[in-house]
Amino acid sequence: MSNLGTELYELCQELFPICRSITGNGFRQSLGILKKHVPAMKVIEVPTGTKCFDWEVPKEWNIKDAYIVTPSGDKICDFKKSNLHIVGYSMPINKVVDYEELQKHLYSLPNQPDAIPYITSYYKERWGFCITQKEREQLTPGEYKIFIDSELKEGALTYGELIIKGESDKEVFISSYLCHPSMANNELSGPVVATYLAKWISELKNRKYTYRIIVIPETIGSITYLSRNYRYMQRNVIAGFNVTCIGDDRSYSYLPSRQGDAISDRVALHVLKHMQPQFVSYSFLDRGSDERQYCSPGIDLPVCSIMRTKYGRYPEYHTSLDDLNLVTPEGLLGGYEVLKRAIECLEMDEILSSDVLCEPQLGKRGLYPTISTKSSGSQVKDMMNFLAYCDGSSSNFEIAEKINTPLWELRETIDKLKEEGVLNTVETIPKRI
Amino acid sequence: MSNLGTELYELCQELFPICRSITGNGFRQSLGILKKHVPAMKVIEVPTGTKCFDWEVPKEWNIKDAYIVTPSGDKICDFKKSNLHIVGYSMPINKVVDYEELQKHLYSLPNQPDAIPYITSYYKERWGFCITQKEREQLTPGEYKIFIDSELKEGALTYGELIIKGESDKEVFISSYLCHPSMANNELSGPVVATYLAKWISELKNRKYTYRIIVIPETIGSITYLSRNYRYMQRNVIAGFNVTCIGDDRSYSYLPSRQGDAISDRVALHVLKHMQPQFVSYSFLDRGSDERQYCSPGIDLPVCSIMRTKYGRYPEYHTSLDDLNLVTPEGLLGGYEVLKRAIECLEMDEILSSDVLCEPQLGKRGLYPTISTKSSGSQVKDMMNFLAYCDGSSSNFEIAEKINTPLWELRETIDKLKEEGVLNTVETIPKRI
Amino acid sequence: MSNLGTELYELCQELFPICRSITGNGFRQSLGILKKHVPAMKVIEVPTGTKCFDWEVPKEWNIKDAYIVTPSGDKICDFKKSNLHIVGYSMPINKVVDYEELQKHLYSLPNQPDAIPYITSYYKERWGFCITQKEREQLTPGEYKIFIDSELKEGALTYGELIIKGESDKEVFISSYLCHPSMANNELSGPVVATYLAKWISELKNRKYTYRIIVIPETIGSITYLSRNYRYMQRNVIAGFNVTCIGDDRSYSYLPSRQGDAISDRVALHVLKHMQPQFVSYSFLDRGSDERQYCSPGIDLPVCSIMRTKYGRYPEYHTSLDDLNLVTPEGLLGGYEVLKRAIECLEMDEILSSDVLCEPQLGKRGLYPTISTKSSGSQVKDMMNFLAYCDGSSSNFEIAEKINTPLWELRETIDKLKEEGVLNTVETIPKRI
Repeated sequence: MSNLGTELYELCQELFPICRSITGNGFRQSLGILKKHVPAMKVIEVPTGTKCFDWEVPKEWNIKDAYIVTPSGDKICDFKKSNLHIVGYSMPINKVVDYEELQKHLYSLPNQPDAIPYITSYYKERWGFCITQKEREQLTPGEYKIFIDSELKEGALTYGELIIKGESDKEVFISSYLCHPSMANNELSGPVVATYLAKWISELKNRKYTYRIIVIPETIGSITYLSRNYRYMQRNVIAGFNVTCIGDDRSYSYLPSRQGDAISDRVALHVLKHMQPQFVSYSFLDRGSDERQYCSPGIDLPVCSIMRTKYGRYPEYHTSLDDLNLVTPEGLLGGYEVLKRAIECLEMDEILSSDVLCEPQLGKRGLYPTISTKSSGSQVKDMMNFLAYCDGSSSNFEIAEKINTPLWELRETIDKLKEEGVLNTVETIPKRI
Repeated sequence: MSNLGTELYELCQELFPICRSITGNGFRQSLGILKKHVPAMKVIEVPTGTKCFDWEVPKEWNIKDAYIVTPSGDKICDFKKSNLHIVGYSMPINKVVDYEELQKHLYSLPNQPDAIPYITSYYKERWGFCITQKEREQLTPGEYKIFIDSELKEGALTYGELIIKGESDKEVFISSYLCHPSMANNELSGPVVATYLAKWISELKNRKYTYRIIVIPETIGSITYLSRNYRYMQRNVIAGFNVTCIGDDRSYSYLPSRQGDAISDRVALHVLKHMQPQFVSYSFLDRGSDERQYCSPGIDLPVCSIMRTKYGRYPEYHTSLDDLNLVTPEGLLGGYEVLKRAIECLEMDEILSSDVLCEPQLGKRGLYPTISTKSSGSQVKDMMNFLAYCDGSSSNFEIAEKINTPLWELRETIDKLKEEGVLNTVETIPKRI
Repeated sequence: MSNLGTELYELCQELFPICRSITGNGFRQSLGILKKHVPAMKVIEVPTGTKCFDWEVPKEWNIKDAYIVTPSGDKICDFKKSNLHIVGYSMPINKVVDYEELQKHLYSLPNQPDAIPYITSYYKERWGFCITQKEREQLTPGEYKIFIDSELKEGALTYGELIIKGESDKEVFISSYLCHPSMANNELSGPVVATYLAKWISELKNRKYTYRIIVIPETIGSITYLSRNYRYMQRNVIAGFNVTCIGDDRSYSYLPSRQGDAISDRVALHVLKHMQPQFVSYSFLDRGSDERQYCSPGIDLPVCSIMRTKYGRYPEYHTSLDDLNLVTPEGLLGGYEVLKRAIECLEMDEILSSDVLCEPQLGKRGLYPTISTKSSGSQVKDMMNFLAYCDGSSSNFEIAEKINTPLWELRETIDKLKEEGVLNTVETIPKRI
């Protein structure tokens, strides 16, 4: 297993213990850790109460401690042991309640008796604890001391934004979210992989596109971000990926943009088809993350998702079982590689044209490979097939699809044909994208 | 079984004994019975000899009695027992013929020995009797008295036309035919169901479309009607249904218009897919009723057929076995319900648009159902899916297709979202229809 | 088996022994034999060195004799016994080599020990012999006398061109190639079938299209021909067929043009679907003959291939086993018939329109067949179906596809309907072709 997989995993380990929510210091602290990897990332604070389309930025929530003391004096649901024990956005409280009253504020999963569920209540003020079903069943009548040292106040919603300039103003948009407490696939894998993609893109030579990479709280974060940026993004974003659930080593998944055939969709399918042909293809109707906002009518950004096992489709989802055993170095690396290939395809996609009518005489141009690590036959066939569709109106990506060859495997061939003057660039960025 | 099924069936019973043909008093009398249910229907008479495109209105045929007396004095093929015994449009005759001569004028079905076939000869003057194969085989040599008290004279072709005005001049066209003598599925089910659809449409509040409902003789009737109305209909008819074979309780069937993707076709498929997923889908090449004229080149009306078991595809077709045992109250009601749903879909199909960018905050608008007879989850999902495609260019019907939900199940959701001001009407009638 | 099959086969037999290459006297002599059947064919010579796009016409190669004398004095690889023994375009040589040196110049097929392979080296000067694997294994160390009496000199590339004028300047293009030595399916079947198609076309009455039929050397011949004719052809050629591998009696095959839906493609599929429904459909990516040039970007001619068993897909391909046992009179005739039908379809394809609205009354026009060798029912159904789509914008071919009937079976019906004045010609050659 590569060093890169380990690096990705170690960043997950570093972030895992922090209690994050859609606002607050846990989010800020986590963003600070990512910023160490991509120092150019700006941290932006949007004040509570700011109007964002039909919504407004909520109060900021912070929490220091929380627990329950049982009638027999045991401390349970201890926030310091697992931040999932507290219902997100719980109000502060310090009082004694009886067994019956307590029950109304406990959340557990009868079918997963060892799991602490992940529950939040952002838009209705309440308090509550999440507990394993096993522990809950051992509770007995009596008086329970409830203690939550939290604070809900005017503050801000925080997000990170990194713009990596390319030759063109046209943008590839990458979004991930960091608002979940201690869970690993959903969701530390996303911001961690997005951060490493950002590092790789920063060092990509001659990059054509500008990259807009954001790390936000889910839903309210994407709505807030869009309300400040959507007009510019509508003019400039040509492809986008929501990066989520990208760290386990089970399946690969694809969820389309609303339009379904954006270049991001087509590139995602191309990459998965060639690299992970067993991938699961979902419908836009199965959506459930920030593409709900990015793809909404009137916004219409070309954002799709490439995932490992999709949110809602694995048993550990939104419980304490979604931990660092579920996410693995191999899983993270696999997800990273697929997204990297997708970006490579976007960067390689231009429209070329040949000045030579009929097939060129490859022999006299030295274009028949004499030494090659691949089978020469297959390489020549790819070259002739590429040329056969290189008509000044099909893009490299479209040709790769037609000849059923991964675009990245054509890189050497394309470079050679350009060098030899057989092919010339007509459009660096295909106009119709 | 509902009262409505019984009502439909009883109307079939009332009409069944009457001897109808493409012209004549039987047709007039039957139309009079339907008119009692829809008094606004006009009865129109087109004189014999009127030119209608490549055709002309034939002479009017009436018949009072007909029979054969066998050598042994038995009266057979008695018109008063079954009007199917007489070949439609038979000339009057009163003479004695021998066994050999008689044979040339008898029609029977060797493979269905108990059935009297249905035979007509509208455009070549002849006479003949239809008889069961069993009875025919008992005939013996000798002299037969032939008596047909019919009359073929200058007269008229009769049809009924009902225009139910809506908010728009744009029309939904419903056509059925009433020219068959005592047969039930093909064809009393059609005019009976069409009549009850007319009654329901008349009471439909805020109906958007105007409805043009006609009851005609088949083929010559649709040619005659088109020759007088086709230019106006080409401008105004946006959907049409030929209502035939809609009363047995076996299968459901669909036969497309010639263009195949008119809104009537798409609505018919939507309704059948959701209500009767086992329906049989025919090709336009299987056509055989008035869509032959409605969909002919230069006429090009968007007329398709929703049927129960299609003409020509059930053994009793065009014989005395197509009777009131074959047609049932349940069968008629099922056909009626499907056609009613199709019309509901047309009426519900408008283009809406949301003024809210990103998903609306349903909570603050009270759009999360608090009490509901359906699963709230599914209703919220339908609402969010509907909104996700509600982009001011897709019609409600198109969205229902995209989110794979019956349009009529979205009625409550759509009404609520309009009430709350989340959705506004952009086009009452989608322009591209 | 028909006389025509025998004639085709006998022409193959006459041509078989001649040693052909991409230039030289064998090609000229073979073309002379074809010209006896189609005297109007012009023989054109293009001098060595003429520039043709990225290529130039090579030197002309001729050979009189070639053989090897073994250490024991046996004459092997005797050109006079099989012209496949010599590597095409071998340089002249007359010297003694040892066993090791000889091995470098021998070509055999370990997996087909009885076959002499077919090898050429047009663009790199070398010499070599082709030998069966069995014979090769019997060679022993010692001195071998090598003799090749060939000549490579300034000369010409020869091809045949036949233009058969039709009513229109629009052209159907037929290309075949004659540059292979003694092999039968690939490639004598192609020029032989093309020659007989030319004979049949010459006698076709009222032919609409002009026919451009060429017999060339493969690859360099099509490049040469295109370089002199492509601008005119781009304006005028509406359909084209590369005629190759059309003589064995195993499968039927289709290989599309690059665009894939040219009228030639659609006609080829129509004919094969109805005549040879088991045909094999290849991808353009499986191409390997002159369509590589005809369909290249910037040339873009609508040329597809109808074949019997495709080049490269039968074990005898490019060996001495591709002989007159593999090709049969039935095989040649079958290929000829399919191509003939394709041309018939092109000639029959016009746009008709009816002046009659609704269905015409066939009875009064005598269009119901009274005596017919086919089932009248099926003929009337075809007639009504044809009329149902005859809207002045669909072509006869398009209608035949829609009603799933071979176009040629509609010839009688169409002629009758035109005679009776029901149908009139709107466009002799559909404009959008």
